[in-house]
Amino acid sequence: MDLKKAIRVIPDFPKKGVSFKDITTLLKDKQAYNYAIDTLVDHCKEKNVDLIVGPEARGFVIGAPLAYGLKVGFVPVRKPGKLSGDTVTYEYELEYGKDALEIHKDAIEAGQRIVIADDLLATGGTALATAKLVEKLGGNIVGFVFIIELGYLKGRETLSDYEVFAPVIY
Amino acid sequence: MDLKKAIRVIPDFPKKGVSFKDITTLLKDKQAYNYAIDTLVDHCKEKNVDLIVGPEARGFVIGAPLAYGLKVGFVPVRKPGKLSGDTVTYEYELEYGKDALEIHKDAIEAGQRIVIADDLLATGGTALATAKLVEKLGGNIVGFVFIIELGYLKGRETLSDYEVFAPVIY
Repeated sequence: MDLKKAIRVIPDFPKKGVSFKDITTLLKDKQAYNYAIDTLVDHCKEKNVDLIVGPEARGFVIGAPLAYGLKVGFVPVRKPGKLSGDTVTYEYELEYGKDALEIHKDAIEAGQRIVIADDLLATGGTALATAKLVEKLGGNIVGFVFIIELGYLKGRETLSDYEVFAPVIY
Repeated sequence: MDLKKAIRVIPDFPKKGVSFKDITTLLKDKQAYNYAIDTLVDHCKEKNVDLIVGPEARGFVIGAPLAYGLKVGFVPVRKPGKLSGDTVTYEYELEYGKDALEIHKDAIEAGQRIVIADDLLATGGTALATAKLVEKLGGNIVGFVFIIELGYLKGRETLSDYEVFAPVIY
C-alpha cells in the first residue's frame, strides 16, 4: 500500500514556505491507518520491547496504538506542567528561544527496552529531547519509529546514535 | 482485572482540593493498558463503528488504540490552530472564560457511525463539545467511551442524549 496517497500536503502551514504533511487524512482512512500501525508493529516485534514512549500530542496517536499492537505499555512525554506526578525535564534550543519536555520520574525502570514513536521526523529536535529524557531514567533505546521522514531536514543525522525507521520518506 | 489498582491518585492537582486520577500508571502497565483497551474494543465491536473521534491530548492515547483494535480510522479533535486543513470550531463556556475545539471539515462524512473516546469523564464539557463538532459534520454518535468516570461530577447527565460506557467509576 502506498501510504503517501493517504497523506495530504498543505502549503504554507504553519508558516509561509513550509509544505506541511497532514497525517489526519491517513488516520481517518481505516486501511491506511491500520496498515501504517501494522508496519510499525511488524518492525518492532522482534526487538523485545518493554515500553513505547511518545511525545505530545501526535506521538500519542502513533505510539499508543503501536504499544497496544505489541501488547506493551505506553509512556507519554509532555509539555511542562501537564504530568501530575514527579517529573524530570529536558530543555532544548529552538531557532528562537527554548522549549522543554517532561516525563514522569517513575515512568521507566533502568534497563527497560524502549522504542520512541512519533508521526513525523523533521529536524529530530523533539525526538532527541525525548531520547535524553528516556536515558536520564536509564532506559535502553532500541529504536525510533515514525510514519513520515522529511529526509531533506536530516533528522537521521541528529539521531545518528540510534536506529531509525519510517515507511514514508519525502 | 481491577483497573483501579493501576490508577494513581494525586491530591491537589492541578489545583488544591482536586484529587487527580493519573492514568499514566495504567498506560505503562502492559497488562492493565491492554486489558483497558480490549474492554473498550469489546464494548464497541458490535456497533458497526466507522470512526473513533478523540479530543486532544489524552483522548488520543485511548481513541487511537481503540480505532486500531476495531480496524477503523481515527479523527483528532484539537485546540484552535493545531489542525492544518479547513476546520469547524465549537466554543464553550468554562467556569472562568471560554474554550474552543476544532475538527477538520472533511474528517467525517454525513451518516458515519462515530464513537467518541477519552480517558476520563468529569463534567462532560469537553465530551459534549466534541459531540457538537461531530454532529455539525453530520456524524451519527453511537456512544462515548472512557476508561474512568468521576460519577460525582455528573458528566453522564451532560451526555444524557447518548450512550456512555466507562469500566472504572469513582
